[in-house]
Amino acid sequence: MAKRLSGIFTPMLVPLDERGDLNESEFRRFINWLIASGVNGLYPNGSTGEFTRLTAEERRRIVRIVCDEVKGRVPVLAGAAEANVKETLAACELYHSYGATAVAIVSPFYYKLSAESVYAHFREIALHSPIDVTLYNIPMFASPIDVPTIQRLSEFERIIGIKDSTGDVAFMMRMISAVRPLRPDFTFLTGWDCVLVPMLVAGVDGGTNAASNVVPELMRRLYDLTRAGQLETAMDLQRRILALFDLMLYQFEFPDGFRAGVEMRGFDFGRSRQPQTGIQSADRARLKDALQCLVSDAGLVPPPPGGCPVSLSAAAGDGAPSSKDVENIVFDVLDVLRQRGLL
Amino acid sequence: MAKRLSGIFTPMLVPLDERGDLNESEFRRFINWLIASGVNGLYPNGSTGEFTRLTAEERRRIVRIVCDEVKGRVPVLAGAAEANVKETLAACELYHSYGATAVAIVSPFYYKLSAESVYAHFREIALHSPIDVTLYNIPMFASPIDVPTIQRLSEFERIIGIKDSTGDVAFMMRMISAVRPLRPDFTFLTGWDCVLVPMLVAGVDGGTNAASNVVPELMRRLYDLTRAGQLETAMDLQRRILALFDLMLYQFEFPDGFRAGVEMRGFDFGRSRQPQTGIQSADRARLKDALQCLVSDAGLVPPPPGGCPVSLSAAAGDGAPSSKDVENIVFDVLDVLRQRGLL
Amino acid sequence: MAKRLSGIFTPMLVPLDERGDLNESEFRRFINWLIASGVNGLYPNGSTGEFTRLTAEERRRIVRIVCDEVKGRVPVLAGAAEANVKETLAACELYHSYGATAVAIVSPFYYKLSAESVYAHFREIALHSPIDVTLYNIPMFASPIDVPTIQRLSEFERIIGIKDSTGDVAFMMRMISAVRPLRPDFTFLTGWDCVLVPMLVAGVDGGTNAASNVVPELMRRLYDLTRAGQLETAMDLQRRILALFDLMLYQFEFPDGFRAGVEMRGFDFGRSRQPQTGIQSADRARLKDALQCLVSDAGLVPPPPGGCPVSLSAAAGDGAPSSKDVENIVFDVLDVLRQRGLL
Amino acid sequence: MAKRLSGIFTPMLVPLDERGDLNESEFRRFINWLIASGVNGLYPNGSTGEFTRLTAEERRRIVRIVCDEVKGRVPVLAGAAEANVKETLAACELYHSYGATAVAIVSPFYYKLSAESVYAHFREIALHSPIDVTLYNIPMFASPIDVPTIQRLSEFERIIGIKDSTGDVAFMMRMISAVRPLRPDFTFLTGWDCVLVPMLVAGVDGGTNAASNVVPELMRRLYDLTRAGQLETAMDLQRRILALFDLMLYQFEFPDGFRAGVEMRGFDFGRSRQPQTGIQSADRARLKDALQCLVSDAGLVPPPPGGCPVSLSAAAGDGAPSSKDVENIVFDVLDVLRQRGLL
Repeated sequence: MAKRLSGIFTPMLVPLDERGDLNESEFRRFINWLIASGVNGLYPNGSTGEFTRLTAEERRRIVRIVCDEVKGRVPVLAGAAEANVKETLAACELYHSYGATAVAIVSPFYYKLSAESVYAHFREIALHSPIDVTLYNIPMFASPIDVPTIQRLSEFERIIGIKDSTGDVAFMMRMISAVRPLRPDFTFLTGWDCVLVPMLVAGVDGGTNAASNVVPELMRRLYDLTRAGQLETAMDLQRRILALFDLMLYQFEFPDGFRAGVEMRGFDFGRSRQPQTGIQSADRARLKDALQCLVSDAGLVPPPPGGCPVSLSAAAGDGAPSSKDVENIVFDVLDVLRQRGLL
Repeated sequence: MAKRLSGIFTPMLVPLDERGDLNESEFRRFINWLIASGVNGLYPNGSTGEFTRLTAEERRRIVRIVCDEVKGRVPVLAGAAEANVKETLAACELYHSYGATAVAIVSPFYYKLSAESVYAHFREIALHSPIDVTLYNIPMFASPIDVPTIQRLSEFERIIGIKDSTGDVAFMMRMISAVRPLRPDFTFLTGWDCVLVPMLVAGVDGGTNAASNVVPELMRRLYDLTRAGQLETAMDLQRRILALFDLMLYQFEFPDGFRAGVEMRGFDFGRSRQPQTGIQSADRARLKDALQCLVSDAGLVPPPPGGCPVSLSAAAGDGAPSSKDVENIVFDVLDVLRQRGLL
Repeated sequence: MAKRLSGIFTPMLVPLDERGDLNESEFRRFINWLIASGVNGLYPNGSTGEFTRLTAEERRRIVRIVCDEVKGRVPVLAGAAEANVKETLAACELYHSYGATAVAIVSPFYYKLSAESVYAHFREIALHSPIDVTLYNIPMFASPIDVPTIQRLSEFERIIGIKDSTGDVAFMMRMISAVRPLRPDFTFLTGWDCVLVPMLVAGVDGGTNAASNVVPELMRRLYDLTRAGQLETAMDLQRRILALFDLMLYQFEFPDGFRAGVEMRGFDFGRSRQPQTGIQSADRARLKDALQCLVSDAGLVPPPPGGCPVSLSAAAGDGAPSSKDVENIVFDVLDVLRQRGLL
Repeated sequence: MAKRLSGIFTPMLVPLDERGDLNESEFRRFINWLIASGVNGLYPNGSTGEFTRLTAEERRRIVRIVCDEVKGRVPVLAGAAEANVKETLAACELYHSYGATAVAIVSPFYYKLSAESVYAHFREIALHSPIDVTLYNIPMFASPIDVPTIQRLSEFERIIGIKDSTGDVAFMMRMISAVRPLRPDFTFLTGWDCVLVPMLVAGVDGGTNAASNVVPELMRRLYDLTRAGQLETAMDLQRRILALFDLMLYQFEFPDGFRAGVEMRGFDFGRSRQPQTGIQSADRARLKDALQCLVSDAGLVPPPPGGCPVSLSAAAGDGAPSSKDVENIVFDVLDVLRQRGLL
């Protein structure tokens, strides 16, 4: 039986230079830093990597660079979704030739497909791909992959796992119950960083977590603590990751909060290709300080020049997250969620 | 500091006689059976108890009977939501006089209120209730209580906890992060039986679980195993509860699946006040056999006369839920969810 | 063949005195004013009448007063939904004895029922009601009545029509296409004031319009203009009604904007039973001025003491709604819609 | 003041050959047939044209062919959305050089953007495009464009109109009220074929209607009848278009129903790039007959070999749509809507 993928996979952000083009040297430096920081695998061309805002040529170049730089040190899960099945299969072949471990293919998006069409799409890919395939379920952006469909698709050996970004623990349990008895080698990964511990308890093998671009050490520690059965310590850390994740995900335009976080770690990632207004840029600067406070609290970066209102580590001395900062962040988040119609 | 409520509270089903009226003697027998089966508290007039299908007079009678029969053996959390604040406060006073431990008040329903109005509603109740109040958040049926609102409401001492039926572990963690630092005595209960273990890991104190009407012993065992840190055994049981819960919740019209389950345990609960067509009655009979197979597997009831396709206990001998039965149930569930617009 | 109901039916607001009890004398005065202002029928105990915030006894009293005061001058459509079918049928019998023309019964709410259960519910009522029944479809608050269900239910002679509050013109056309060929006497009424003209063009018989509590003359004129084929003039008026409706519906907590409007017309309706915070009361005062400006523009009330920013009638001299006021209102509305999850 | 776009624009389907490549000769024949059949403009690279399933190179080729074949006979609205603003502007320049009348740009999709980001995106395009721009709002597939945003964007002269595919008449009225006073030259087009008449009554200038690929003559007649004030005849035709649209939109995987319709009109369009299962292919054959019956009823094509259950024209002799066929279609549609989460 094949070994499942496991641990923390980083859905990699992409550094752009001042002209908006890929900054290759910074990207290579980032790859090495992530591996050195303990992530278990790399995942280029995911949602966090803004794959839809790249050209097809840029997506190919990114996978080529990652495979070239990684040189087998960690598995590479290459996002290979293209405009249609034919183009997607061409990417599968290419990424296979580059040495990727497997490809990750998001469910068809824009059109909302029926379960039967989602099945037909992945079946066609499974039948012809020369490289192992993981499915990618993210219903807030793409056609949903439901439990009966994942079960039907698990009959293809070429399909080896699923990354799910719903954050719905019961849904994950239903998928696992439906698939594992027949495919004990099938990998389940969660893309919802803020519930990684409960998801691991529920049976997932690991995560593809955007936060691991910013705090790879913490995400890896979260995984290790849970695996070691140190649940109370893990949950303390999980609560901090929740505050950090909520801030980066909901207070910024996705994935700009994660881009702001990576800059804090000393990388020059430039600006997203999504234009922003002056109001948004001002917000970003303000939020970046709040973000730096949250991360500095873990000792990973210094506090921002203006200081932080309350030290989180002090406040959390009794094992409870109590900073007013965290509260305020939590308060604002739901509004934004609702504004996007995601709640 | 007050002690938090904890453990398994049963949101009690209501037995009706052949005329559709409350069957008091059966109800008293049921109360005693639940306590004997290990539930930690009783919760009359909840959603499972079809409180909206009862008259105001019937709701009062139900709480009176429960308090009278329980005689302090376990805490009683009495559902006290009425047509408006004045009527609700009258119920609070009455249930206080009956000896209830606290009341549970669902967020205003029918109209979808703003967060500010939800706050105003509960503030008014908190200021005048003579008895402790737990909030009840069930956004699929009633106006949502969001994180900032629960935090504002936690400033009232009279409000001692919340029952949340979203099943959203991240949302529960946000609530706990926002409230516990200031109110360490605040109780969090989950109404989503199928993720009780992950919710307990995330910090809740217990559950108000419809499934505890049917398998009170198993829900209590699930709670005890998790508290004892036996997570692997707990998750095995949780997966069975998931299959049972999904079957009772999604394959029947709520809460008729739970009514079918209670009948299986030897109670004569009559029919719901919600009329059904012939097709639905036929479905119910068919589903009841599937339900009996799931429960018989735990040794709580004998298998149905026609037998069960595969023994779940045998199939699960290797610790994994593998019966084709369970799979099929899981497969059907999502369709129904979607048809109700709940997914 | 029975004659269809037609024209403007007012889903009546309920005046409360300073103790929060029904203000009967003001209610009787309101009834006479509405009839004198030209509405074609009265509809007590609808959503606008906050029927869920009244006790069962109050609902009965309200219908008794309406029937007693109307004395057959216009048809009375009495909201008769109660906690369950038995209680609902008792209300049907009572309202029949009071002389109501028909009852209106909202689809079961709180629980989200399947189409089959919605059918079973109304079938049971249709089989036993001594009075004609109109269905009430308002999916934002209650279980949806879909096209196949309305078609199945139209086979019962006792069911004579439907009030639909979706505002979805295509859905209305689907219902009409499915029902009218078999039941040419079936009445279709829209509860979405802001698209009354397009709905009449699409084939409805009239509306049950909350705005007719506030501007009964305008709603009646809108109906008459459309029936007379004066569509351009009708659409000019429809655009003003849209601005008024959006302001009253989305800027206030429903139905408080309509309550504020009725007060402006010289009635003392007291406060809703839904508590409000200080912030909300301040908002209400501010919005009431904007509301008075919109209504004063039609010559129905004087402008507020502080005056209005721009005269709408002047601005609309070229047949187009152009006041900055209207724009601003429109701008704010969508946010609120989204916050309620109604968009 | 510039003249608004008006009438029926066809969001063109794309014929593929047996290898799945663009069938250019058939495409040119189709262009000429559409113009001869009376459509007022052509709209390549829209949602109906499956632009997301084409490569960037194919999208460019399609616009080049359309402009080349049309030779100025009707306006060409060229879909120009690409992976990011830079690529989109390059397409704008190219399509300008091809002689397109204007471009249509869908709101950013995949990621759900905030209103501020949607504004920033279109502002950047408006500032640099050498060709007029129409916005494209289709919230079921892409980030919503709300009323305040469309109003802000209408300040750019380069933005000349909006195509809206919500089918929400009230929303369309709100947009018109917010924009027309300042921009009387601003064009409003509806993409929701089944409510074209009510939308025209509400003030839109025309439609970009997928059904005009299949029945261009009828869509044009629908437009002309409404403009001529013959509303009753127009609504009779609208009801048939509703049945046809519902069948093609909801019973097939979009836009396969429209592809099936075009084949019926004598074009060889090949199969979509979206793979289908055997079940789906069988469904398609069955539905194609129902479709042919609906279209044959208007005298545009002969009935299918097996005949049609009831002649629609006979049944509709009294001006009402009464065929059992139509009813059955209507009955099935809602289920599918719900399954896709679009209802």
